Amino acid sequence: MNEQTKFLLGEDRIPQAWYNIVADLPSPPPPVLHPGTGKPVGPDDLAPLFPMALIGQEVSGEQHIEIPRPVRDIYRLWRPTPLHRAHRLEKALGTNARIFYKYEGVSPAGSHKPNTAIAQAFYNKEEGVAKLSTETGAGQWGSSLAFAGALFGLEVKVYMVKVSYSQKPYRRALMETYGAKCVASPSDETDSGKAILKQHPDSPGSLGIAISEAVEVAAKNPDTKYALGSVLNHVLMHQTVIGLEAIEQMEQADAYPDVVIGCAGGGSNFAGIAFPFIGKKLRDKRDVRVIAVEPAACPSLTRGKYAFDFGDTGHLTPLVKMHTLGSEFIPPGFHAGGLRYHGMAPLVSHCKELGLIEARAYHQNPCFEAGVQFARAEGIVPAPETTHAIRAAIDEALKAREEGKSPTILFNLSGHGHFDMQAYTDYFAGKLLDQDYDPKALESSLSHLPKVAAE
Amino acid sequence: MNEQTKFLLGEDRIPQAWYNIVADLPSPPPPVLHPGTGKPVGPDDLAPLFPMALIGQEVSGEQHIEIPRPVRDIYRLWRPTPLHRAHRLEKALGTNARIFYKYEGVSPAGSHKPNTAIAQAFYNKEEGVAKLSTETGAGQWGSSLAFAGALFGLEVKVYMVKVSYSQKPYRRALMETYGAKCVASPSDETDSGKAILKQHPDSPGSLGIAISEAVEVAAKNPDTKYALGSVLNHVLMHQTVIGLEAIEQMEQADAYPDVVIGCAGGGSNFAGIAFPFIGKKLRDKRDVRVIAVEPAACPSLTRGKYAFDFGDTGHLTPLVKMHTLGSEFIPPGFHAGGLRYHGMAPLVSHCKELGLIEARAYHQNPCFEAGVQFARAEGIVPAPETTHAIRAAIDEALKAREEGKSPTILFNLSGHGHFDMQAYTDYFAGKLLDQDYDPKALESSLSHLPKVAAE
Repeated sequence: MNEQTKFLLGEDRIPQAWYNIVADLPSPPPPVLHPGTGKPVGPDDLAPLFPMALIGQEVSGEQHIEIPRPVRDIYRLWRPTPLHRAHRLEKALGTNARIFYKYEGVSPAGSHKPNTAIAQAFYNKEEGVAKLSTETGAGQWGSSLAFAGALFGLEVKVYMVKVSYSQKPYRRALMETYGAKCVASPSDETDSGKAILKQHPDSPGSLGIAISEAVEVAAKNPDTKYALGSVLNHVLMHQTVIGLEAIEQMEQADAYPDVVIGCAGGGSNFAGIAFPFIGKKLRDKRDVRVIAVEPAACPSLTRGKYAFDFGDTGHLTPLVKMHTLGSEFIPPGFHAGGLRYHGMAPLVSHCKELGLIEARAYHQNPCFEAGVQFARAEGIVPAPETTHAIRAAIDEALKAREEGKSPTILFNLSGHGHFDMQAYTDYFAGKLLDQDYDPKALESSLSHLPKVAAE
Repeated sequence: MNEQTKFLLGEDRIPQAWYNIVADLPSPPPPVLHPGTGKPVGPDDLAPLFPMALIGQEVSGEQHIEIPRPVRDIYRLWRPTPLHRAHRLEKALGTNARIFYKYEGVSPAGSHKPNTAIAQAFYNKEEGVAKLSTETGAGQWGSSLAFAGALFGLEVKVYMVKVSYSQKPYRRALMETYGAKCVASPSDETDSGKAILKQHPDSPGSLGIAISEAVEVAAKNPDTKYALGSVLNHVLMHQTVIGLEAIEQMEQADAYPDVVIGCAGGGSNFAGIAFPFIGKKLRDKRDVRVIAVEPAACPSLTRGKYAFDFGDTGHLTPLVKMHTLGSEFIPPGFHAGGLRYHGMAPLVSHCKELGLIEARAYHQNPCFEAGVQFARAEGIVPAPETTHAIRAAIDEALKAREEGKSPTILFNLSGHGHFDMQAYTDYFAGKLLDQDYDPKALESSLSHLPKVAAE
C-alpha cells in the first residue's frame, strides 16, 4: 500500500473565513417569521436570545465572514482536522472507488460541534454575556458548549433529554469536567418543563422540549443567552471550516469528490462538509453529487413536509421553513440521538428544494453493520449518527463495484463513538429494532402545523 | 497568542526503526532467569509464548531495529501523533515554563498501546500464529490488541480483571467491536483462574492473575501465543516511536526539554517518551531530567525492592529483575487501573539503578485535580493514568514560577479518558480516597520474593 493515508494541513491553513452559501444560491431562503404576526422577524425579536453579531450572521448575504482571531487560536487545538484515505476499507469492500473521510472526532469533545460552540461562546463573551443555556440530546452538543464555556469563562447550563441523561452518564461527566451544569429535561426549573411534567410525569423528554426549556431560561434572564448546536444559518456557516479544509486536502490528494456524504439530523455537520462543495458547483461548475443521510425512523428530508414550523415543542421559537415532521412528532426509539430532531435546517431544506442535494434514509441495524465494518478496517469507532454516512458511502462504493466504476467518495466522519458504546453492545446483542415511524402519528403531527399566511 | 500550538509531522516522518536503549547503556540489564534452575532463559524457554522475532528483539543489543513496512503502514492511520505546546495551561498556571505534550490519545484505541499491539500482531501473523491471548486491567491494552487483531485477522482473547470488566462495560464493548473475545478474570477457563476462584470465589481479580490465565492458555495451545502490553524489553522498544517523533517535533518548535515526564505502571509509555531522550543524553551529552510518576498506592519504583521476581501471581513467568512490591502485593483501590502492577519494567528499573531517571509518587486526588485543570485549559480529558504525568508537569511548572525560572517541560499524554469518566464522576462527588499502601502487606509480600542464587 504505497499511497498516502492522511492528508494534513498546518494550523496556518485553518480557514480565515467561514463560507456563507446564501451568497451563491440562485434564490434566497424564505424569511424567518414571527409566530404571532406571521411577519418576518427583525433583530430585536432575536436579541433576547442571541448576541447581535450572531443575529447579523444569521441574516447575512456576504459570501465570507472572517473568523475572529481568538476563535482561530482555539481551533488550533485540533484543527485543521485530518482527511483520511480509507485504503483498508476500500480493500475490504473490493471496490475501485476511492473513499476519503474527513475526521472531526479529533476535537476535544469528540465531534464537529466545537466548530460552532467556540464561535458562539466568543461572540457572547464579546457582548458581555455571562451565561449560556442550551439543550442536548446524545450529549455531543452539550459537551462541546461546555468545553467552549470553559475556555471563555462562561457559565454553561445544559438541559439534557432525560432518557439520554440516564443512559449516558459519561457524557454528563464530560460536561461537568468542563465545568458546566447539566439538568435532566423536562425539569422543574422552567415553566415549559413544569407544564410537560404535569401532563406526563414520566416523560423521557425530547430535543423539542429541552429547546423550550433552554430558550425560556435565556428569554427570562438578561445575563443569559441561548446557544443552538444546529439548524440555524450561522451554526451551519461555522461548520463550513470542515468542507473548506477538505477542498484543500482533496487537492493535496490530487482528487475531487464525485459524491459528498454527510449524516443529517439538524443538518450542521452535513452542511459543514457539503456547502463549500455546493458553492464550487454553483460558482465553478464543478459537478458533484451531495447526499444527506437520515434515520428511517425520523425522516424529515425524505418524508417530511416543506413548511413553516416551530423549532421546539413548546412553541417559543420563531417559525422557519423547513422539511418537518411536525413539532409534535416523537420518533420511535433508536440510538442516533443526534438525529432525532423533527425538522431539518432551513438552508439544507432550501438546497433540497433547489435540487442541489439528494436525501436517503436508513434503518439503524445496517448503519451499525457499516460502523463495525469501518472500525475493523480503519480503527476508528464512529458515533451512531456517523454510521449513517458510512452506510451510504459503503453502498456507493459497492454500487460502483457492480457498475465497474471508480468514483471518488468523500464523507464526513462527524464524531467518534466513545460515549455511545452501549449502542454497539445492544447491536451485538441483537437488541436494536429497525422501527419505522408511525404514519398515523406523522399525519396527525403534520395536521397541526402552524397556519402561516405567507405560504 | 502568536506561537504555534501543534507540531505535526507527515506520515513519511514515521520513524524507520525503533530505538533500543540497551545498546547505549553503560552496563547491560540483568538476564531473565528460569524460576526452576535460576539460570538465564534461552529462546526455547520463551518460544511457547512468543514468536521468534519478538524473542530476538527481547535480547537484542542492536541500537536500532527496523520497523517492518506493514507495521508502518498501519501506524499511518494515526501516526505521527501531534506534539502540542500547552499555551493555555501555561497561562492558567502563570508560569514562564514552556510546557509541551505528546498526544498519544489520537490512536483508534485511544492510547499509546497500539504502537506495540500492531507490531506484536504483525510478527505473530508472520510466524503463522492464529490466536493471541492477553490480559487487561483498565482495558487500554486489551482494546489495542483487539484493534491489532482485527487488522491482521488474528483471533484475540482478553482476560480482563473482573472488577474492571464489571465497571467498564464500554471498554469491553470496544474490544467486541474490534471482534475480540473478552472474559472476566479470574475465569473458570484456566487452571490458574479455577485455583483462585476455589480459594476466593468473589475475587475481584488482578493484573497478576489475569496474566497467569493468558500465559496458561498460550502455553497449552500450539496455535496461540501470548501478548504483553508492557514490562518486556521489546514492548518498551516498540513505544520509542513516541520519543523519536518528539525529538523531531521539539526541533520544529526550536526547543529541547529540560525535563521529560511520563506516568509509569508497567513502564511502557514512560519508556516510549523517555528512552530516546536518555539515549541522546548518553550519546550526545544532551542533559535532561527524566521523571517517572507512579501512584502512591502502588509505588514500585519509589518503595519497591530491586530484586528478581515473577511477573504474575500464578508464578508462570520467568524471573525478571525489577523494582517490585512482590507478586502477592494487592494495592488499595484507585482509579488508574493501568498503574496497578506490582513491578516495573526491568529496563526502566535498570535505568533507575543507573541514576538515569528520577521517580515520584502521587495520590489520586491531586492527579485528578491536575487532569481537570488540564481539560479546562487544553480541552483534552486525560486518562486517570495520564493525570499522574500532568500533576508532575504542573508541579514542575509551578516550582519554576517560584524560582523565577523558565524550563522546557515535555510530558507524554499517553491516552484520553473517554472510557474512564466514572473516575471523574467519583472525583467530583468527593468519593476518591487517597489511600496509602499497607506497609505490613508490603513487608509480607516482599518477604516472599523468590530466592535466586544469582543475587
